[in-house]
Amino acid sequence: MTTYAVVLFDNAEELDFVGPWEVFTVSEMIRNAGTLPPGNVITIAEAARSVRCNKGLRVEVDHTLDSAPGCDVLLVPGGMGTRVEAENPVLLGWLAKRAATTTWMTSVCTGSYLLAKSGVAAGKRVATHWSFEDQLEKTELVTVVRNARWVRDGQVVTSQGVSAGIDMALWLVGELHGADHARSVQRYIQYDPAPPYQADV
Amino acid sequence: MTTYAVVLFDNAEELDFVGPWEVFTVSEMIRNAGTLPPGNVITIAEAARSVRCNKGLRVEVDHTLDSAPGCDVLLVPGGMGTRVEAENPVLLGWLAKRAATTTWMTSVCTGSYLLAKSGVAAGKRVATHWSFEDQLEKTELVTVVRNARWVRDGQVVTSQGVSAGIDMALWLVGELHGADHARSVQRYIQYDPAPPYQADV
Repeated sequence: MTTYAVVLFDNAEELDFVGPWEVFTVSEMIRNAGTLPPGNVITIAEAARSVRCNKGLRVEVDHTLDSAPGCDVLLVPGGMGTRVEAENPVLLGWLAKRAATTTWMTSVCTGSYLLAKSGVAAGKRVATHWSFEDQLEKTELVTVVRNARWVRDGQVVTSQGVSAGIDMALWLVGELHGADHARSVQRYIQYDPAPPYQADV
Repeated sequence: MTTYAVVLFDNAEELDFVGPWEVFTVSEMIRNAGTLPPGNVITIAEAARSVRCNKGLRVEVDHTLDSAPGCDVLLVPGGMGTRVEAENPVLLGWLAKRAATTTWMTSVCTGSYLLAKSGVAAGKRVATHWSFEDQLEKTELVTVVRNARWVRDGQVVTSQGVSAGIDMALWLVGELHGADHARSVQRYIQYDPAPPYQADV
């Protein structure tokens, strides 16, 4: 089995983590004959209380930083909360420590700011939300890649804003379990995107 | 302001409602100079307890069916829970009653089954998840449209599986507030989809 953990904090952006959450859980469900084993995909936060996301959704968490088991893939979402957490030595220290035992350290949107500040992505090429690229570049902690939807540099995989986490997560389950598997996850979530209003007519 | 409500129940599918949630909240945030007014986008469930979604995410709800204020747009997600809720006269009766005072009744994935069973979508053209089309057709309650990502029939807008809710929600905020507005929501969530593994190489 492959284990995944999503790190949550107040004002994490909802779709940043629920997009990959759906991809990771469906992947594990398909790999386990249609049943998702409990504990394969979990949420983690600093305190044992529910988290209030950036757009108001309130989510309960499965584990605290201290009680959380190890995992193969860790995902850090973005959202306005990353500006607060970037000054939180407890979370940053935990991320740095966990990177040593986690195969893939991933982020969506401004989650890459936390991977940068924690040192996990230090000196690496990373992606972030388009509106945060200049600011992240000014930290001089990382090299911001502006023309790729997601970027892999060693164990670190970062994606652009919000919805980009879905594409990155699909790439990752394909990297882990093959392109055919990733395509069956895509089929399950019926991900044949058709954004409207692409023309000015 | 435009008000939105998401109906939740145990085993609702996570991305089914969080995709539209993100679109609706960003829309209201943009329309209110960057601040999301509290109460514009809410969650509703039958009981005043948290809901355990189909892939394990636990979400707190804002209102019960009895306490929930009216709204302009109501969204019903899919997920395995719809098979149970399709036999729940309390929820079905509530949906039927709310349809009379709600401008848009929408669903994602197998949420259209609940709109069908409640009578809200009776006799209408609807979309659902590809794996549920035959079963929904057999109910003879609705006409299943198999070749459209989302379908509008009067006040009822239904979409195909899971990720299709994002496209449908973007269409709806454009219908309500214009194509330019919908495009700025799309830009905020950086929705330039790039599913990987589209080729066999």
